[in-house]
Formats: sequence, structure tokens, C-alpha cells
Amino acid sequence: MKMNNLDIKRLNSSDTDFSQQLEQLLAWESVSDHAVHGAVVDIIERVRRQGDQALVELTATFDRYSVDSFSELAVSAERIAQALANIDADKRQALEKAAERVRSYHQHQQQDSWQYTEADGTVLGQKISPLDRVGLYVPGGKASYPSSVLMNAIPAKVAGVQEIIMVVPSPDGELNDMVLAAAAIAGVDTVFTIGGAQAIAALAYGTETVPKVDKIVGPGNIYVATAKRQVFGQVGLDMIAGPSEILVVCDGKTDPDWIAMDLFSQAEHDEDAQAILLSDSVEFLDAVQQSMDKLLPTMERSDIIRAAIEDRSALILVPSMQAATEITNIIAPEHLELSVEDPEAMLAEIRHAGAIFMGRYTAEALGDYCAGPNHVLPTSGTARFSSPLGVYDFQKRSSLIMCSAQGASELGKTASVLARGESLTAHARSAEYRIKLQ
Amino acid sequence: MKMNNLDIKRLNSSDTDFSQQLEQLLAWESVSDHAVHGAVVDIIERVRRQGDQALVELTATFDRYSVDSFSELAVSAERIAQALANIDADKRQALEKAAERVRSYHQHQQQDSWQYTEADGTVLGQKISPLDRVGLYVPGGKASYPSSVLMNAIPAKVAGVQEIIMVVPSPDGELNDMVLAAAAIAGVDTVFTIGGAQAIAALAYGTETVPKVDKIVGPGNIYVATAKRQVFGQVGLDMIAGPSEILVVCDGKTDPDWIAMDLFSQAEHDEDAQAILLSDSVEFLDAVQQSMDKLLPTMERSDIIRAAIEDRSALILVPSMQAATEITNIIAPEHLELSVEDPEAMLAEIRHAGAIFMGRYTAEALGDYCAGPNHVLPTSGTARFSSPLGVYDFQKRSSLIMCSAQGASELGKTASVLARGESLTAHARSAEYRIKLQ
Repeated sequence: MKMNNLDIKRLNSSDTDFSQQLEQLLAWESVSDHAVHGAVVDIIERVRRQGDQALVELTATFDRYSVDSFSELAVSAERIAQALANIDADKRQALEKAAERVRSYHQHQQQDSWQYTEADGTVLGQKISPLDRVGLYVPGGKASYPSSVLMNAIPAKVAGVQEIIMVVPSPDGELNDMVLAAAAIAGVDTVFTIGGAQAIAALAYGTETVPKVDKIVGPGNIYVATAKRQVFGQVGLDMIAGPSEILVVCDGKTDPDWIAMDLFSQAEHDEDAQAILLSDSVEFLDAVQQSMDKLLPTMERSDIIRAAIEDRSALILVPSMQAATEITNIIAPEHLELSVEDPEAMLAEIRHAGAIFMGRYTAEALGDYCAGPNHVLPTSGTARFSSPLGVYDFQKRSSLIMCSAQGASELGKTASVLARGESLTAHARSAEYRIKLQ
Repeated sequence: MKMNNLDIKRLNSSDTDFSQQLEQLLAWESVSDHAVHGAVVDIIERVRRQGDQALVELTATFDRYSVDSFSELAVSAERIAQALANIDADKRQALEKAAERVRSYHQHQQQDSWQYTEADGTVLGQKISPLDRVGLYVPGGKASYPSSVLMNAIPAKVAGVQEIIMVVPSPDGELNDMVLAAAAIAGVDTVFTIGGAQAIAALAYGTETVPKVDKIVGPGNIYVATAKRQVFGQVGLDMIAGPSEILVVCDGKTDPDWIAMDLFSQAEHDEDAQAILLSDSVEFLDAVQQSMDKLLPTMERSDIIRAAIEDRSALILVPSMQAATEITNIIAPEHLELSVEDPEAMLAEIRHAGAIFMGRYTAEALGDYCAGPNHVLPTSGTARFSSPLGVYDFQKRSSLIMCSAQGASELGKTASVLARGESLTAHARSAEYRIKLQ
């Protein structure tokens, strides 16, 4: 098959207007649509008012799946076990191996409660507790990814969450066996075949049958994302993700076909995905571009790849690998591939990235499925201030303060001065009651 | 002075409709005002377009403080040193003692990077990095609390944040010396006397003079809160707090005056504050109510206290201390005082609370100022899923993956099966390139 060559941007970081060009390349503002917002608010209200019945009606409308009563939207334990039996042995084995590695990595994220005792007997500390109940949203249809089920559910279980409620729409009644099998392997407790804003509303507020959760995680379309924003505060949320992106930094010594395919693996997600390559070798950038032109016609999702590569991607020439590091910290990429000889030396200079794939063998795709770390990562530069999804997202802390009589007396004096300085005299007097008279 | 007795709600958890009564008591929805939203969007646009000049104009309008150029809105190091010299010695000493205790507690929250090597040489890990630059919003005028400066800035500095930019409006040109002194003690790097939505916009997007930050923390009025929601994603945020609340659990053996004053210390914050007492002794509830009636006329902020106590507070009789624990977990209070004989035994049963004050001596007010733990805490039941402000809020994690040739080959096989199962063939092929041919 003959295709037009890819029209990919070529930038040079030594150009005087490079900063603006980079800013333009990275610009992304999610569209806030008033019509979507209005529809979502109505759906949430309807679910809060009519509970299960609203879910039955909205599922018939939006998912073209009609049932007589809500109980038919609950997936039985038998159906889930059946899914596990239905899938091919190699797929089941792959899911189990991935789950085991993800579990093992996330166990390293466990946090411990701690406390210490001061000289006067006052005890200070921090208690870690898991969330009680978590809701996991899984998109339906083609974007229904079993790997996402593992990546969202396993950290919650490692954190000690007692109950995970998964929701996954079944458009036209179709359910993905791989997704149910992943749910079984990850230890999901309950599954309902509902989706969209109505599923988010059910998880946030509860219905007769769907239990109210403390936090909702998982990706979804614009209706789901809008509904999540709307219920924030009522429940906790994971981040609301922008389009996926990769930044590859290469010293020019990795096989250009490998790098081209690594860029494609990001680009095939969707038309808004972004793939950027930084190298100090213009010959290497040329070679990767040739590899991309050569490989594109062999790709199943070549239309999506072309759109992402031509609209939002770039090959960038830098004067040195030091410059590559500086630009990396400006981009703060979701995925960073350091395809260089000594990635550990470079790591010391990297301040902002969601996940860092080090060395020529570490394809980003390994991290998407089975390396162990989470594939839910901060996008659009938010790695400057946020982290991969992890065990810490399913636990919270309580501060502990237990004053001895002596400790309360001493602290009371300080608190009294500061409280009176802020004109909060009830605070001051509450503290002063605990000051010992000499 | 003679005052009417307080009309405080008395509930009994054994009543059949107690759940509904409790739900009603706890109900809180923040008002979302379209006029405020529109004004805030305009202000943000104006600051993005006109930078410093917009800040000068908006400060003249909203803070009635006119300057010729933006440089006058930057607080000099000399002015900050002056504030430290201006304040009374006992206040300075109290601030320094509080800062030292807050710093010492938060140092226990330090997180370490970690990594481990698998049998085939593959390395997995997690790197902790501080945020580069943080913005701290401090309200002006009467709500300008030096203790908030300490509580927000110190954890950031302990986390390793290089630069803290503080903004504090100076209505009519008035600046609070205690606030500036606290900034000096906490290690704040730069101070601008700007406030409102315009200050949030400046921190989020940067101007000629105000550097763009990575995260904004600190309390503010409805304009500030709305602006924070609006810039979320561009920068990180701390939580947006609801009204402050306390839940006191008492076995009836603490001095009722102490408990009354502890409840008042919460109520004096503002009319929307909430103070709830749970006890298994009706005589003790009566005694506390009498203490409140006796003490109210002696309080400077008696009007605010009365409003908070009568509108949003309650004394609740429970059949047992076990029942008190269960209700505590439903309320998930911001502040929890366990004024009981054996608070440690009770602690084991507490799953949800922002900060837990244990024993009769540990007045909540001590935690507000100087015990050490943070006073920025999750409100309105959000302790079910969120934590006190801490060092962890000023750091983020990057996942590390460095595969050996052998590791990449093995992982590549699993990734390939799963990627093909999801029809993501560029992912599969990127992984397959790294599979060793036997």
C-alpha cells in the first residue's frame, strides 16, 4: 500500500522563537461544553431522585440495552467466573502475570502509620487508613481496556480498600470477557453494567442497589469527565486526564525503527495524542522520519496515527543532551523514554515526568501493560505537580495529637498568645483552661 | 450582661429517624454563583492579557490601594525584616516556637525515593521530587492569620520547594505585621500585596513580575475559591475548604466548661461553623449546655458563636461509646476530640477524621497553632477520602522502569498478548521489537 509521507513538524531548539513554538505545540485546553454540562446536571438529578429506575431508563436510552428491572444490570459472580473461563489460556496467563507484577510493584508504595513521644509525654503521629469503598469506571465498547481494570483496581486492593464497585456500560448488551476476567483477577467485588454520567451519579450518591462510594477512579468520555467534576467534593476523584503523550529522548544510537514504533504506540491511542522526539543528531531525526514513513502503511490504525503525528507531534533537534534534559523539564511529559547510553546519569537531572522508561530496551508499551508501575499518569504537563495513580490515592491520613498534662500546659501558653493575636478568644480560653497554675 | 439561653439542637441516636436528622445536620452544599463565576473569568482573562498593569488597576478597584507601578506591590525584604522587628517579643517567640514544632512534625512526613532490582536485572522504582515553585494565598484584613502562613509554607519548605511566592491583599494599604513576620519565619521567598481572583490568575499564568507557580495553596473568599477552581489543571491546588467543624466525643468526665469552650472555639470561626458533642450521659449534655449558656455572655464573638451553635450544631445522646465511634465514622469530622479516659483504645475504631485530639488535655485549639500537625484539614466529610495538608502535597512521584535485555524480552511477550487483545498493534510491535530471538 502506498501512502503519502508523514508531514511531521521539525523544530530546532536553537531557533530564536523555539520557546513560542514549543508552547504552541504543547497547548491543550479541554473544551467545556455548556450543552454537555446541562445534560449531565439533569442526569445526575434524575439518578438522585429516582435511583435504580432512572438507571434502567437511561441505560435503555444511551446504551440501547433494555431490561425489566435493575437486578439485570448487576453482573453475577457466575457470569464473571464464566468470563475467566471463556478467554484464551494465553490471554488469561498474560493478565495474571501482569496483575502479579502490578501488585508486587504497588506493595512498595504501602505507607505506615507513625508516632513519636516528646520528652513531656505528648504523643504526635499520623494514622494511615484505607478508603472504605471505591468506584471504578470502565468505558464500554472499543475503549474497554482490561489493562485499565488492573491498573485501577489493584492499587486500591493493596491499599486495603474493602469494596470496589466497578461500572462498565454494555452498549447493545455487549460485555467484554477480557474486562470481566481482569475484574475477577484484580479482586473487584461488584460489577454493574451501567455507564455514562448516570453511573457516576449512582456511585457518588448511591441508589437502592448501587452503594455510595468514597472515591471514583477510571477514564471516561466527556460526559463521564463532566459528571466527575460535578460530583467532586461529594466523593474523591482521580485526575481528569487529557490526551496521552510521550517524549522520547534519544542519543541517536537506538534502532530508528524501534523509536518510530514507540512514537506510533502513543499516536495510535487517538487523534489528539502527542509524540515528541528530542535528539542531538539531525541524521537520527531523519532516519526516524524515514522509519515512520516506511512503517505507517503497515499499521492497522494508520489514520489515527497520521492525525496525531501530523497535528500534535514533532521531531526536535537539540544542541546537546543537556539541552534535551532542560526541555524535558519544561514539557513535564506523561511518558518519558530515555533511549540513551547512560539513562541513570540523565535521571538525576529530570525533575518532572509521570513515568520514566530508561534505556533502549524499555519500550513505553511495557509500562502500559505489565512492567509493574501504574499506567494512569499525569498528562498535559501536570507531572509538575501530580503523581501516577498509586496506593496513596486509596489511603488517607489522620493527624494524631495526645498531650500530656505538662505538654498541654506549655503548648497552651503559646496557643494563647497566638490566638489572642488573631482575636480568637474562645480558642485562647480553651487552651488556657489546660494551663497548670503554678 | 443578660443573654437568651442558646437554642441548641438535642438529638438522640436511638430515635428512629436519627439517620435523617444527622444527614440534615451535616448537609452542606457550597453555593455556586453565576455572577461570581462571570466576574472571575473576566478578571483572569484581563490578567492573562495585561499582566502587571491589570494587577495595578484591579488592586486599586478592589483593595482601594492605588500605586503608580507594580513594583510598589512587591514587599521588600527590608519591609519584611521590619515587621519581624515591629511585633511584640512574646508574639515573635510564640510564632517561632510554633514554627519549630510544625517543622519538626512535618519532617516525619518526608518520603524517600526507592527502587529494587529483579532477578533478570530489571530495575523498578519511584522517584520523589519537590514541586519547583508554590503560590501561597493569604486573605487580607481580619481573616489574615499568621498561623495559616506557617501551616502552608513550612510543609512546602520541608518538602524541598525552592521558591514560595506569597500573595496577600492590603485593603486600603494596610498590611498585617504578624503575617509578614510569619512569612519571614516560615521562609517565604517573595511577597506581593495583591489578592482576590487577580492574584490567583497571576500565580497560575505568571505576569512580567509575578512568576508562574506549579501549585496554589491557602484559603480565600468565594472569588478566590472560584478562581482556584477555574485555573485547576494549569496549576495544582490544595482542597477547597467548606466551613470548619469539630466533633467532640466525651464520656462525661471532662469539666463541662472545658468542653463548652472547645465547642465555642470552633463556633467563633464563622456563622457556618459546626460543633457537635456526642456523649452517653444525658446529665453531661445538660451540664455542657448550662456551661455554654453561662459562658456565652463572656465571649467577644458571641453573635457568631450563637449563630453557629443554633444553626448548625447539636448535642447528641448515644446509648454507648461504641455507638459514638460508629457515628464518628459516618460524620468523618475535620477535627475530632476524644475527651475520654482511654482515647487510644477508641482510636483503633476510628477510620475517618482529619485530626484526632486525644485525651482531656488536648484542646483542639492547641492543634490550630502549635502542637505540630497541620491545621489545614479536610472538611464536610471529605476526611473519608482526603488528608491534612502535608509535605506530600508539595512533592510528586515519577515511576522508574529500566528493563534489562532479558527483562524486556520476557515482559514483551506478555505486553504483546495484552496489546493485541486491545487491538493496539503499535503497542504490540513496539514491545515485540525487544523480544530476543531464540
